[in-house]
Amino acid sequence: MVSGIWRDTRLLDLFGIELPIIAAPMANFAGVDLAVAVAEAGGLGSLPCAALSPDQIRSGGAEFRSRSNKPLNFNFFCHAVSPPDLAKDRAWLKRIAPYFAELGIEPPTLPLSAGHPPFGEADCAAIEALRPEIVSFHFGLPPKPLLARVKATGCKILGCATSLREGLWLAERGVDAIIAQGAEAGGHRGMFLETDVAMQVGTFALVRAISSSVQVPVIAAGGIADGRAIAAALALGACAAQIGTGYLTCRESTISPLHRKALADPGRETAITNVLTGRPARGVVNRFMREQGPIDDAAPNFPLARPAIAPLRAKAESQGSADFSPLWSGQAAILPPAMGAGELTRKLAEEARAISA
Amino acid sequence: MVSGIWRDTRLLDLFGIELPIIAAPMANFAGVDLAVAVAEAGGLGSLPCAALSPDQIRSGGAEFRSRSNKPLNFNFFCHAVSPPDLAKDRAWLKRIAPYFAELGIEPPTLPLSAGHPPFGEADCAAIEALRPEIVSFHFGLPPKPLLARVKATGCKILGCATSLREGLWLAERGVDAIIAQGAEAGGHRGMFLETDVAMQVGTFALVRAISSSVQVPVIAAGGIADGRAIAAALALGACAAQIGTGYLTCRESTISPLHRKALADPGRETAITNVLTGRPARGVVNRFMREQGPIDDAAPNFPLARPAIAPLRAKAESQGSADFSPLWSGQAAILPPAMGAGELTRKLAEEARAISA
Repeated sequence: MVSGIWRDTRLLDLFGIELPIIAAPMANFAGVDLAVAVAEAGGLGSLPCAALSPDQIRSGGAEFRSRSNKPLNFNFFCHAVSPPDLAKDRAWLKRIAPYFAELGIEPPTLPLSAGHPPFGEADCAAIEALRPEIVSFHFGLPPKPLLARVKATGCKILGCATSLREGLWLAERGVDAIIAQGAEAGGHRGMFLETDVAMQVGTFALVRAISSSVQVPVIAAGGIADGRAIAAALALGACAAQIGTGYLTCRESTISPLHRKALADPGRETAITNVLTGRPARGVVNRFMREQGPIDDAAPNFPLARPAIAPLRAKAESQGSADFSPLWSGQAAILPPAMGAGELTRKLAEEARAISA
Repeated sequence: MVSGIWRDTRLLDLFGIELPIIAAPMANFAGVDLAVAVAEAGGLGSLPCAALSPDQIRSGGAEFRSRSNKPLNFNFFCHAVSPPDLAKDRAWLKRIAPYFAELGIEPPTLPLSAGHPPFGEADCAAIEALRPEIVSFHFGLPPKPLLARVKATGCKILGCATSLREGLWLAERGVDAIIAQGAEAGGHRGMFLETDVAMQVGTFALVRAISSSVQVPVIAAGGIADGRAIAAALALGACAAQIGTGYLTCRESTISPLHRKALADPGRETAITNVLTGRPARGVVNRFMREQGPIDDAAPNFPLARPAIAPLRAKAESQGSADFSPLWSGQAAILPPAMGAGELTRKLAEEARAISA
């Protein structure tokens, strides 16, 4: 058993995987191809379901099953839905009207609308049909009755914490493992009890705090993109590392050429912003973040800040500009060269082993 | 040689120390006692000189020498001095006037004044007289002529970087080692090229970025308070770890009982603020940070934000309140129990060895 060479195999045993490496679920930016490649290499692949319909979840799960018999992690958002706030959205559209004038396009009409509902009845039915090995939730956990139904399928439940308080909250509710998402992490912060980005905690401090305070295995996330960083995460007390941005450079990711170009710059600067979607998420700083954020309470509530600028993003991207695009990225400066996700997974594991040994 | 058991001994050899542990210099909060205890245990002790007069630096150095023959790190601030801005300071005093009314005390008179000049002629003369083994600088490096004189004493020079860019800048200027100060770190951010706190990088990402980009040894700082974290820092590519907040809990630190109490709470929340001194520094969130910051460009320039609230701080502290006090603290949640700094140093090294071995 390959996992025998890792010191703390609790998570490997729990999930039935060989390597302490999880490909972060990245809604819109990765799909079945990346999950299969990571899973077949011995890591844990993830299917980001937040932006998928129940039918797409079913077909994604079926496709994965046809290509791999390894475990798969189905990831969902379970954010509290904000009540409509037309006045707020109207004020925001007024504030950003000059961009629409500049690009010669019409702003969206009110009310703003977006897909991305939180984990609900139809998603739960899909999970009950698919019976996956692992289900993970971002932004807390779903309501108790739904969570109970997911648990009843026999899957392992993964939650994401950005503070010790959130970690303890998840542990109390019986999750099987906790992702400690440090402030370095790219994409949406899992924050659900915390509200102030200024107090978000770095990976070093967060992994130590949570892993020394809960009984369940902890997965380190944030700023981890190579084998040395994985070894460091294990030394800190994590049982595995979750890697996002590192996998975005892989051939199987579905990011745009603009996004890929932004990640290729080791001098790129990232910030946590809420002006692109309405919730705090870390990405490469672009014009809209710089001019309107990175954080502003006036931005429409999640996920409506996204449709508010969708026409700007589409027009700008058609002109080769990422001024309005979410270029999600963690803070790890030096990312892997472009390669296949399976090859990367094996390379990361070998590097981590060499350091940990 | 005890250092033989550590993998990368470049820094140990450079400094002539046994353990890859540096006690962070903490101006106003630690002095010769802590430095002696850490040095005698095999780590590197630091004498924070930023708030000391040249005479105090000389006497501190002499006292250390009388008690230890180990190397010592003399630390200085070398910030660019902002030109006076009476209008800004007046506006700030007006804004915070209600606090003075509430506490029934008079605000300070303009112009505000503070000690803490940057490293200058008299400090340099003290260094030339003391000829210490190591001199470290915060907020960049002093002007070339002064730096050349320090170098000419034969000491090793340590610089502090908060970004890859700052790390490369220091390496180009010939420092002997670089502290990679992750965003988790307590106290003043070493930022000197960077200006935006929102883009400060976590320890995980920063240590990897700098250590893989420069030839000189890198010291990890930020969020490190136990042996596991030290082992993780070494796995990341650091040659040593610098620990600040962990040593504040020691008997030899000179923090106030209020500060000690704030650190004892593992649920304490910290933020990077500029409203207490004028430069970004991480501390436990208190009333003044919450109500006026944590970051506000309107705060007087460093170090004048400190005298602006000095009377408030003194009055509040006399009443047992830390509402206006700098409770510097990093993000490491779980700090060592109160013990001697020598004992802590040995304990940290043993823990780190057990994990690294």
